[in-house]
Amino acid sequence: MSSASIFTTIAKDAKSAARTGVVELPHGRVRTPVFMPVGTNATVKAVSKDSLAEIGFEIILANTYHLYLRPGHELIRRAGGLHGFTGWKGNFLTDSGGFQVFSLSKLRKISDEGVKFQSHIDGSRHFLTPELAVDIQTAFRSDVFMQLDVCTPWGADEKDSLAALRKTTAWAARSKARWLETRGDFQGKLFGIVQGNFYKELRARSAEEILALDTPGVAIGGLSVGEPFDVYAELLAYTAALLPEDKPRYVMGIGTPEYILEAVQNGVDMFDCVFPTRTARNGLLFTAFGPISIKQARYAEDMGPADPDCNCRVCREYSRAYLRHLYKNDEILFSMLASYHNLAFLHELVRRVRYSIEEGNFIDFKREFLSRYRSKL
Amino acid sequence: MSSASIFTTIAKDAKSAARTGVVELPHGRVRTPVFMPVGTNATVKAVSKDSLAEIGFEIILANTYHLYLRPGHELIRRAGGLHGFTGWKGNFLTDSGGFQVFSLSKLRKISDEGVKFQSHIDGSRHFLTPELAVDIQTAFRSDVFMQLDVCTPWGADEKDSLAALRKTTAWAARSKARWLETRGDFQGKLFGIVQGNFYKELRARSAEEILALDTPGVAIGGLSVGEPFDVYAELLAYTAALLPEDKPRYVMGIGTPEYILEAVQNGVDMFDCVFPTRTARNGLLFTAFGPISIKQARYAEDMGPADPDCNCRVCREYSRAYLRHLYKNDEILFSMLASYHNLAFLHELVRRVRYSIEEGNFIDFKREFLSRYRSKL
Repeated sequence: MSSASIFTTIAKDAKSAARTGVVELPHGRVRTPVFMPVGTNATVKAVSKDSLAEIGFEIILANTYHLYLRPGHELIRRAGGLHGFTGWKGNFLTDSGGFQVFSLSKLRKISDEGVKFQSHIDGSRHFLTPELAVDIQTAFRSDVFMQLDVCTPWGADEKDSLAALRKTTAWAARSKARWLETRGDFQGKLFGIVQGNFYKELRARSAEEILALDTPGVAIGGLSVGEPFDVYAELLAYTAALLPEDKPRYVMGIGTPEYILEAVQNGVDMFDCVFPTRTARNGLLFTAFGPISIKQARYAEDMGPADPDCNCRVCREYSRAYLRHLYKNDEILFSMLASYHNLAFLHELVRRVRYSIEEGNFIDFKREFLSRYRSKL
Repeated sequence: MSSASIFTTIAKDAKSAARTGVVELPHGRVRTPVFMPVGTNATVKAVSKDSLAEIGFEIILANTYHLYLRPGHELIRRAGGLHGFTGWKGNFLTDSGGFQVFSLSKLRKISDEGVKFQSHIDGSRHFLTPELAVDIQTAFRSDVFMQLDVCTPWGADEKDSLAALRKTTAWAARSKARWLETRGDFQGKLFGIVQGNFYKELRARSAEEILALDTPGVAIGGLSVGEPFDVYAELLAYTAALLPEDKPRYVMGIGTPEYILEAVQNGVDMFDCVFPTRTARNGLLFTAFGPISIKQARYAEDMGPADPDCNCRVCREYSRAYLRHLYKNDEILFSMLASYHNLAFLHELVRRVRYSIEEGNFIDFKREFLSRYRSKL
């Protein structure tokens, strides 16, 4: 049942668990560590596929919950999957829809079989099962499929966390069975998800159960759900250390420099978050000296780039003064430029992270980066 | 006082007043006839300067009223003018602010000296004179300056129309004096504006008075202000015929294929309108077979391009089904792609118009284009 590993390690850091590598996927190789932009409705908000390619992204996300409800996975299947529908030539990772069912939908009711919910758009009733989540992602022709899982919030008690873990394991097995049964010659890769909330014994149990299923990749779910940074760091380190060397490791929902660097240090290869694009639309721009809020009057006549250290197209060609003007006028171009910059900033951060690992100085790089990033010039 | 003509005729149509030519401006030559996209706040909404250049635009508009109020012309002056502020490398034409004072501001009061008004943004009080309109456009380093004029609505009586005409002439003279006095070695070109509402004798008088001032270019104002198409066509033909061969002729506020083709047939060289980008954001896409409303259910599974005859990037790479999906989800990418397509469509229309004039078959081209455009496939 086991198949050839899709992950190849390139370099390992001597002083931490950080590593670089390559994930082989149907739409090309993905160099890791990698930050993946989120394209909820099959578009990264305000950023064209050409801009994503120009920045250098090799993989982006799309959200199964949203696309299943609208326009529907059968329409996307007929369009040739997400690639045919959107024109994006790199890889797509799709989530299972579970997280959004729990966070967005109404009247959800979970059973061993799956989860009943009402659409947040029109109130229509749906029943998402692990098998349906796989079928939807098959229709999408996703390069990476995520299993349907049950994520518990920060503060959940051990009993609820255990129940969620047990469902997650059972659903992982059903997801894998469906995926093997239906994939034909299609090469999308299924990732299992380790849950267990913030209980180490549950994390260990979940990791053991999920790893036994030998999915091509493994995700750590249920982190960055409201917990303090130290708790995140501790559970991340504990859980990541349980994962095998030969599979890509993915932490879901991570998108700030601090969280990304912590994940990398613990050997995580993949992460995604809406944070860089969502905050961009609200006027927050990443810089080497920490994020700035472009709406501030101090930037009104600032003819310098968004980030003096950044070489992205936006920083090469536009001033803070112009960006602020666009923001103050609610111009769409602001969302376009700010989203582009924030994504380019994270992409460049991760590229430099890879380089530092290969040069053997990741820990120094991390310390120096964070020291500047927190300096609030 | 007269200076070398900035307009060179390339070809003249034998069967109409249509012509092609070149306008020499500080940021490069502009081939005419030309459609100019409108960038009200120093950005064409949802379209980057790189996309504008990719489509092939050589000149765009910006609005003096908006930019004077926010961020202010002195800031733009310090940023190096509109080119320094925005990064756009082609030409900028700026209006005088007058039209927006009349349509957007509160409590406007017009005198011989100028127009007092309150900002629609914050209620602040301002006094726009012909001299200030020139000074603002000097701060912008605009390639084409428009004089402050008084535009009357469809239905204005002859007395009001005459009063507006007289002010427009007087303000044209004051604009020219200020422009000559302050331009130094800067090469921005001032255009006078012919008014006169829909009274031929007033149009004739206005043309005579404005032409006597010998500005580098001449605009026909006060058309497309609510009148029926036939009235537009008649007054356009009458007024355009009064203008000299050796100056570029500009009709303000024209942006649909029917109006553009009519203007070209009467020897107009330049036109602008927010219509293609504004309607794009509302889901209307130009096609060779007439405009379509992408929200319609019939396009939900339409895997063809927005316009089967168009070769723009959007039509090459995206389907109607995907565009409709983006529209239904209020995705910014929809505004980006739809605006790009509508501008590319008009740019290509005007390019084909130029070609047809040079090939001697403009009237046939116009008839065939409109026959398909009105066929509503």
